[in-house]
Amino acid sequence: MIIVLKPGTTEAEFDHVIERIHELGLKPHVSKGEHRTIIGVIGDENKLQAEPLQAIPGVEQVLPVMKPFKLASREMHKGDSVVNVGKVKVGGGSLAMIAGPCAIEGSDILNEIAGNVKKAGANILRGGAFKPRTSPYSFQGLGEEGLKILRDVGLAHDMPVVTEVMDPRQVSVVEKYADMFQIGARNMQNFDLLKEVGQSKKPVLLKRGMSATVKDLLMSAEYVLAEGNPNVVLCERGVRSFEDSTRNMLDMSAVPNVKGISHLPIIVDPSHATGRPDLIPPMALAAVAAGADGVHIEVHSCPEKSLSDGPQALLPPKYADVMKQIRKLAEMFGKTF
Amino acid sequence: MIIVLKPGTTEAEFDHVIERIHELGLKPHVSKGEHRTIIGVIGDENKLQAEPLQAIPGVEQVLPVMKPFKLASREMHKGDSVVNVGKVKVGGGSLAMIAGPCAIEGSDILNEIAGNVKKAGANILRGGAFKPRTSPYSFQGLGEEGLKILRDVGLAHDMPVVTEVMDPRQVSVVEKYADMFQIGARNMQNFDLLKEVGQSKKPVLLKRGMSATVKDLLMSAEYVLAEGNPNVVLCERGVRSFEDSTRNMLDMSAVPNVKGISHLPIIVDPSHATGRPDLIPPMALAAVAAGADGVHIEVHSCPEKSLSDGPQALLPPKYADVMKQIRKLAEMFGKTF
Amino acid sequence: MIIVLKPGTTEAEFDHVIERIHELGLKPHVSKGEHRTIIGVIGDENKLQAEPLQAIPGVEQVLPVMKPFKLASREMHKGDSVVNVGKVKVGGGSLAMIAGPCAIEGSDILNEIAGNVKKAGANILRGGAFKPRTSPYSFQGLGEEGLKILRDVGLAHDMPVVTEVMDPRQVSVVEKYADMFQIGARNMQNFDLLKEVGQSKKPVLLKRGMSATVKDLLMSAEYVLAEGNPNVVLCERGVRSFEDSTRNMLDMSAVPNVKGISHLPIIVDPSHATGRPDLIPPMALAAVAAGADGVHIEVHSCPEKSLSDGPQALLPPKYADVMKQIRKLAEMFGKTF
Amino acid sequence: MIIVLKPGTTEAEFDHVIERIHELGLKPHVSKGEHRTIIGVIGDENKLQAEPLQAIPGVEQVLPVMKPFKLASREMHKGDSVVNVGKVKVGGGSLAMIAGPCAIEGSDILNEIAGNVKKAGANILRGGAFKPRTSPYSFQGLGEEGLKILRDVGLAHDMPVVTEVMDPRQVSVVEKYADMFQIGARNMQNFDLLKEVGQSKKPVLLKRGMSATVKDLLMSAEYVLAEGNPNVVLCERGVRSFEDSTRNMLDMSAVPNVKGISHLPIIVDPSHATGRPDLIPPMALAAVAAGADGVHIEVHSCPEKSLSDGPQALLPPKYADVMKQIRKLAEMFGKTF
Repeated sequence: MIIVLKPGTTEAEFDHVIERIHELGLKPHVSKGEHRTIIGVIGDENKLQAEPLQAIPGVEQVLPVMKPFKLASREMHKGDSVVNVGKVKVGGGSLAMIAGPCAIEGSDILNEIAGNVKKAGANILRGGAFKPRTSPYSFQGLGEEGLKILRDVGLAHDMPVVTEVMDPRQVSVVEKYADMFQIGARNMQNFDLLKEVGQSKKPVLLKRGMSATVKDLLMSAEYVLAEGNPNVVLCERGVRSFEDSTRNMLDMSAVPNVKGISHLPIIVDPSHATGRPDLIPPMALAAVAAGADGVHIEVHSCPEKSLSDGPQALLPPKYADVMKQIRKLAEMFGKTF
Repeated sequence: MIIVLKPGTTEAEFDHVIERIHELGLKPHVSKGEHRTIIGVIGDENKLQAEPLQAIPGVEQVLPVMKPFKLASREMHKGDSVVNVGKVKVGGGSLAMIAGPCAIEGSDILNEIAGNVKKAGANILRGGAFKPRTSPYSFQGLGEEGLKILRDVGLAHDMPVVTEVMDPRQVSVVEKYADMFQIGARNMQNFDLLKEVGQSKKPVLLKRGMSATVKDLLMSAEYVLAEGNPNVVLCERGVRSFEDSTRNMLDMSAVPNVKGISHLPIIVDPSHATGRPDLIPPMALAAVAAGADGVHIEVHSCPEKSLSDGPQALLPPKYADVMKQIRKLAEMFGKTF
Repeated sequence: MIIVLKPGTTEAEFDHVIERIHELGLKPHVSKGEHRTIIGVIGDENKLQAEPLQAIPGVEQVLPVMKPFKLASREMHKGDSVVNVGKVKVGGGSLAMIAGPCAIEGSDILNEIAGNVKKAGANILRGGAFKPRTSPYSFQGLGEEGLKILRDVGLAHDMPVVTEVMDPRQVSVVEKYADMFQIGARNMQNFDLLKEVGQSKKPVLLKRGMSATVKDLLMSAEYVLAEGNPNVVLCERGVRSFEDSTRNMLDMSAVPNVKGISHLPIIVDPSHATGRPDLIPPMALAAVAAGADGVHIEVHSCPEKSLSDGPQALLPPKYADVMKQIRKLAEMFGKTF
Repeated sequence: MIIVLKPGTTEAEFDHVIERIHELGLKPHVSKGEHRTIIGVIGDENKLQAEPLQAIPGVEQVLPVMKPFKLASREMHKGDSVVNVGKVKVGGGSLAMIAGPCAIEGSDILNEIAGNVKKAGANILRGGAFKPRTSPYSFQGLGEEGLKILRDVGLAHDMPVVTEVMDPRQVSVVEKYADMFQIGARNMQNFDLLKEVGQSKKPVLLKRGMSATVKDLLMSAEYVLAEGNPNVVLCERGVRSFEDSTRNMLDMSAVPNVKGISHLPIIVDPSHATGRPDLIPPMALAAVAAGADGVHIEVHSCPEKSLSDGPQALLPPKYADVMKQIRKLAEMFGKTF
């Protein structure tokens, strides 16, 4: 931690800062320059980051030196983590190919979609039973009935399944049916929910919030890890921006950015990021080229009649096309799925 | 709803779109132009907004004409709503002057702060018992013990109290002690939580999410209203932006913007918006001049030792100074508190 | 300047960093912590900021301590600067009330508008002769003919005039007719243009770019000041954001933010910031309450027939209404115009 | 164009809107719904887009149906444009591999870098002689002397050269030495400069502004095309966002987004977009996978001593590594360079 003092700080203010540092059991290193005095503080930075040093009179800036996350950081865990979702491995060269409809609407339609995506190469089936909808008047999902359908269709096609959990009270029922929890973008900082899934052993797909920095995303992962669940897969799915021709802005650089500072796998969801079927295939390819550990794509046999987010779903034949190209690309980079 | 067709749409595609509109019990009005065909769709737009018309082949754009919220809209309720928080009125010329520490840390310190802010003119006391913290290693709040302290200190100073609720499971305990629920920015789209406080009769202070548009904010209010609780006060507290010298960017124009399209009161929180004590007083004054129904300010007697967000709190004398100016401004605009 | 080294930096890398610092004639202060080594560098920070220290092997972060601007900073010039625009003072308690149409369309219409805004209290007349238009097919302004009209109308109403200059080659002709140059948001980092107006003695109204931070704005002011022209008035006019119901997001906190670190006057332009006539009056009032040194408002007698940006202009009677309120507010804060 | 009227619009207001539409020589199609009246306006939309219809009393919204650009649109020109830069083709399956230092610092160093990047596969040499620098105290470039060095080194290595032009007065001198003009992000809406290079026949590399939408970028291209110069190559180089660990946010989806609506080639500049050497290789690969027509990378033999933007440059061996992978990827997609 580095503390920079304001120009014109008094002797008394300076002494008070030094005293506070000693009170915290830490050691100050003072550099007095022409324009500013700088204090390097040596010791447990996590302790310091929780302290409102900025509020001490005379302090101009407090600059953290260490990353604020620990368990999620690569300094803690040098190699790439591999997360098991049912029998599917995610990370370390194994790609998660997650596909399925936005919402579970019924057994037949899900079965048809699952058959198609499995054949195209998908290895994890997705579908929402509890849906976070901007409008209270939109379809809110089938609930537990939907979870049963999802599990049964997953078993029939030998695919592990992932589904969103929105409320800490839903964790136990979702755990009963799903192989992986999804925490949606709107709940990335729903800390009680993060703690609840952190107490499960089932893996968690943690989507980046629409206004979350890469650091915020890793801090939310830290919540899950700190509760004892090490099985977190991150997901870049776009952030809010001024660009009005796509639903969100896909921050592709988040993939290598996260991989540089964290050992956790990270996948990309071009469906929610762009909201446009024409942009999904090139963004899926770009994600694999950027080093992502998988791709999450919405697929629906009849987007125009789907009950949720139809316009952003790919038709099964389009999905099969992009999967062929992804396979070639994965081979080129020595990855498998 | 307006549907714009792509250039080169086939006759069959056009017929299919028209058929879908009729299926939904609605009436199409077709305008064929030189470059584009436009279809005006007359009928219940709420019904249409839930339909994935964008996914129909041949459709280029779907343009909604109506606002997606209903109960929150001024078309529904012409006058300004007034929300009662204990004995304090908010809206319609009555200002909410909410003040207090970020977190409840103990009885004595809260009592001291409450005495100071009450004397300066505050009419609602705030303090957090459940704290949403970016880091799992930061202070998470005193929980129910904190709620009791808050209630007792509120009673002692004859001030209604507001406190954050983060989890649907906390709603009943918070309801027992608080006069108003606060839904924090990170939970603005925690829809299960919104439904839960919507089933209470106690008023709700709904803070704007860091990446929420004004429309998103009103859609979240709609969730609470749709459950039967009409007592919602909105709060602008800044959104994420590229400006790196303030914590968030305070969108001051959200105040008149919301007031133009909704009857709900809206207040401003310059403490969380700016994160800088030097900017809080001018932004509080600007909020009142912009027509806000109140101001929410963090006040702490010793920011450098506070357990949460100390650096952004005002000292009690600074709070008293700004309140003097706010009082003069309120008088000028014919408002009271 | 503070240099933080990566964990695991070698002895040779460390020595190389120290050597580079000495080469630059500066003095390193080393603090070796458990996790990181920190080097405080004492000396002329401006010299250092131009050096790519970040690229030295072993360097993790380079943290500047000083603001990168000098002449624009309050450390350099403690009091508030007052800029003279013709006979009108801007800053130090004197407000600039700039009003007029977006574009100069003709002598009669400008004359009518000028008469109205002068009567309402405006003290500087604005109007564009060279227009930066997003589309090459939109009206591009009357050029020198427009400048003459502006000057003549200004003289007739005894008001100094401000108009935009977009190209270094236009500076001499604009200087001939105008009392103040306007640098538009799109040209805030047109550095050759900044240098050119920096060589004039006429004052410059420098508008914040749509993606410029407060620091970027002050760096652009520094370009003008560094050429010898001290007469810069800054203008907050909104930045790009995800909010889609206003043209831009007005960053009201930029007003006290700039005033804390710079001596230059700063005004607010709610017309371009919001793009909505209903939001202009409350934002103009909020600007004065926030401490702005003036307000810039577009006024047009017939917005629906104006050749540029009609929808965001106020009608003269609406302008007169808001000016009455601004006057009361200014008095309350001890300001005049 | 679609005009939506406010609820409660009077008969007289309605008649006035219809009259204005007829005055403009256009034909209205009226659809009266339960809540709103919608008017489809048939005719030359370019004419309408320049009109302030929004300002007519009773008008709630004006919704454009057509894209505002014409010459740049794919409706105008179905196939992909191919732009010749010296002997190098850009677009239609031919990739531009642009590389070189940020600034031209001298003949020897440029010669060394050019030799390295040419060997690695680069086909266009870049280097800045006029530098847009945020600070007036930073190195501003060698000017014409730099242009001569660039031309000579380009000739020696048989590579066409591209360099930035910042000021309309520099166009003729830059044209003398360079094979392609670069318009930097800060000048994307410097309309006088766009017109000036539009009057040249030499190709233009037009970089996206930091707060420009895809539509804004194409409107700026339209300025160049409208002057008669069809040789425009677009460049995505990141936009401003709240993410603070990268210099800008690379909007990778802009590549297929632009390709869907425009015939112009588009390349990606991961150096300026990310500002971090570790992120450049994965983003360069992702760009090619996303369908970009080339990649623009800064390369410097000694980033720590470069006079401009050193920290974001790749070392020549790193550049050679990423080029090997790009070549394999290009082959896979049937592209050449």
